[in-house]
Amino acid sequence: MPSKEIITEWFKSLQDSICKELELEDGSGKFEEDKWTREEGGGGRTRILQNGAVIEKGGVNFSAVHGEAPDFITKENPVSKKEKFTFYAAGVSIVIHPVNPMVPIIHMNVRYFEMSNGVWWFGGGIDLTPHYADEEDAVFFHTSLKTACGKHNSSFYPDFKKWADDYFFITHRKETRGIGGIFFDKLTRSPAHNKQQLFSFIQEIGSSFAPVYTALMNKNKNKSYTEENKKWQLLRRGRYVEFNLVYDKGTKFGLETNGRIESILMSLPQTAGWQYNYLPLPNSPEEKTLSLLKKGINWV
Amino acid sequence: MPSKEIITEWFKSLQDSICKELELEDGSGKFEEDKWTREEGGGGRTRILQNGAVIEKGGVNFSAVHGEAPDFITKENPVSKKEKFTFYAAGVSIVIHPVNPMVPIIHMNVRYFEMSNGVWWFGGGIDLTPHYADEEDAVFFHTSLKTACGKHNSSFYPDFKKWADDYFFITHRKETRGIGGIFFDKLTRSPAHNKQQLFSFIQEIGSSFAPVYTALMNKNKNKSYTEENKKWQLLRRGRYVEFNLVYDKGTKFGLETNGRIESILMSLPQTAGWQYNYLPLPNSPEEKTLSLLKKGINWV
Repeated sequence: MPSKEIITEWFKSLQDSICKELELEDGSGKFEEDKWTREEGGGGRTRILQNGAVIEKGGVNFSAVHGEAPDFITKENPVSKKEKFTFYAAGVSIVIHPVNPMVPIIHMNVRYFEMSNGVWWFGGGIDLTPHYADEEDAVFFHTSLKTACGKHNSSFYPDFKKWADDYFFITHRKETRGIGGIFFDKLTRSPAHNKQQLFSFIQEIGSSFAPVYTALMNKNKNKSYTEENKKWQLLRRGRYVEFNLVYDKGTKFGLETNGRIESILMSLPQTAGWQYNYLPLPNSPEEKTLSLLKKGINWV
Repeated sequence: MPSKEIITEWFKSLQDSICKELELEDGSGKFEEDKWTREEGGGGRTRILQNGAVIEKGGVNFSAVHGEAPDFITKENPVSKKEKFTFYAAGVSIVIHPVNPMVPIIHMNVRYFEMSNGVWWFGGGIDLTPHYADEEDAVFFHTSLKTACGKHNSSFYPDFKKWADDYFFITHRKETRGIGGIFFDKLTRSPAHNKQQLFSFIQEIGSSFAPVYTALMNKNKNKSYTEENKKWQLLRRGRYVEFNLVYDKGTKFGLETNGRIESILMSLPQTAGWQYNYLPLPNSPEEKTLSLLKKGINWV
C-alpha cells in the first residue's frame, strides 16, 4: 500500500510535469517558485506564472503540511478519549486564469489526508469555468474525465460529476461556477477499492490535467476577442472570486490551518469586476453562457 | 420612545439626503433606484451610482425586512420554550468606491433590529479605507467621529474606535481594512441611555456621513494620479473584496436571510485585482499606507 511519502513524491512529480507542459503551451511565461515552510509543520512549493502569452495568472502549487488537527477536523471526527489528533495533508492545487476570454479558467486539486488515528482519504476535483461556454469544449472536457474515471470504476464519473455540480455552486447566485467536472472527497478503503487502487485513480486524474487543458489552450488561444468580451471576462472572474472566498473548502482549510496566504489566494485572478445588476442582452453569447451554468447538464 | 416606524422613516430620509449630497459633490453621476420586496417580508430601496465623475461605483441602500428569525439569531438568543421569533431589521448601508485613488473608499451602516420577544438594539459603523493613507484626512475623519460621539457619551468614541479596529480586520492578512473609524452593535437600553437617546446617537452618526465624506471627496477629487496609482487601487480594492466576502457580518446576514444579492454585493468594486506576493517599494507611499493598516493607531 502506498505510504504518505510515496504519495507525496508523486504529487511533486505531478507539479513538475504540469508546469513544464503549461510553459510549453504558453510559449512565453515561466513559473516562478517560492518554497515556504509552515511554522506548525510542513511547507510547500508555490509556482506562479504571471503575464504569460496565454496564461495571465496561474498557480500550480504543491504542499505537504502536518501538525495538530484543527478544531473543525476534530469536530467532524469525534473521539471518545481526549486524544489530540495529528494530521498530514499533501496535494497539488491548480488554478489558471487565461488572458484570452475564449480560453476557459480551469481548476484542479488532488490531495491526500491522513490522521494519527489511522483514518486516511483521497480527495480532489477538476472543473472548467469558461467565460464563454463552448459546447464542443464542454463535451471534450467531460468525455476526457469520463474516460479517465471509467478506467477505475464505472460509477465514478456519474457520481463525481453530480458531486461537482453540487460543490461548485454559487448558492447566493443560484448558478454553478462553470460547466462542472468532477469532485470527490474522503475516498477511502472499501470493498471496491484498496488504497493502491484509489491512488492509481488519483494519478489518472492528475495526469489527465495537462493534456486536457493544453488542448483547450491550443484550440482557443488565438481566437480574436473584443473589449466587450474582456468586460464580460471580468464579471465572470468576479463570480470566481465569490465562490472561492465564500464557499471553497480548500480556501477555508488553508485559512484555518494558518496556511500561506499568498499560496492559497493564488486562485484569485489578476483583475476581476462587479457591475450592479448586469443583465446580458437577449440571445447574446453571454446569455447563452449563463443558461448553461446550472446543475445536471449531461455533456457526454 | 421611538417606534420601529419612526426609526424606519428616519432611515429613509437619511438615504434621501445622503444621495442628494453625494450627487451634488460628484457633479455628474446620478443614483438609480431599484425598489425590491423580499418574499419572506419587507424589502428595500437600492440606490446605485455608477460611472460618476468622482464616484466609480457607490451604493446607498435602505432596507427594512422582517420575518421568522433565521437560525443563527435564534441560536444567539436561546429561549426556554420552542417559541418561534420574528424579527424586524431596518437600516441604511453605504459603500462608495471612487474613481480617483487619492479619494478614499468609505463605508457606513446604521441599523435597528428588534424581535418579537421585546429585545431590540441599534448597530452601525463608519470606516474609511484610503488607497493612499493621508494623515491629514485620517485626523479629520477621526476627529469628526469623536466629536459626533462625544455629544452623546464620552466613552463612545474610544470604545467604538477600538471595536472598529477589531471588526474591520482582515485576519488572514493581519492588516486592518483601512484606517478604521467606529463600530458598535447591540446598543440597547442601559442605565446610561434610553431608546430615544440611542436613536439620537444613531441620527448623529448618520447625519455626519455626508458632510464628512463630501469634504474628503472635495479635497482629493482633482488630485492627479498615475497608472501605478490605479494599479495599487486595484490591489487595495481586492483586499476590500476579501474582507467583505470572508468576514463582513452584514454580508453574511444578507446571504443567510435570503437578501437581495445585487443590493448586498453593491459593496464590491467595479474592478479589483490580485497580484501574487506584491511587495511595495521601500519608502514608497504604498509601503507607508501598509504601515498604517494596523490596530491601535491614535489619530486624534
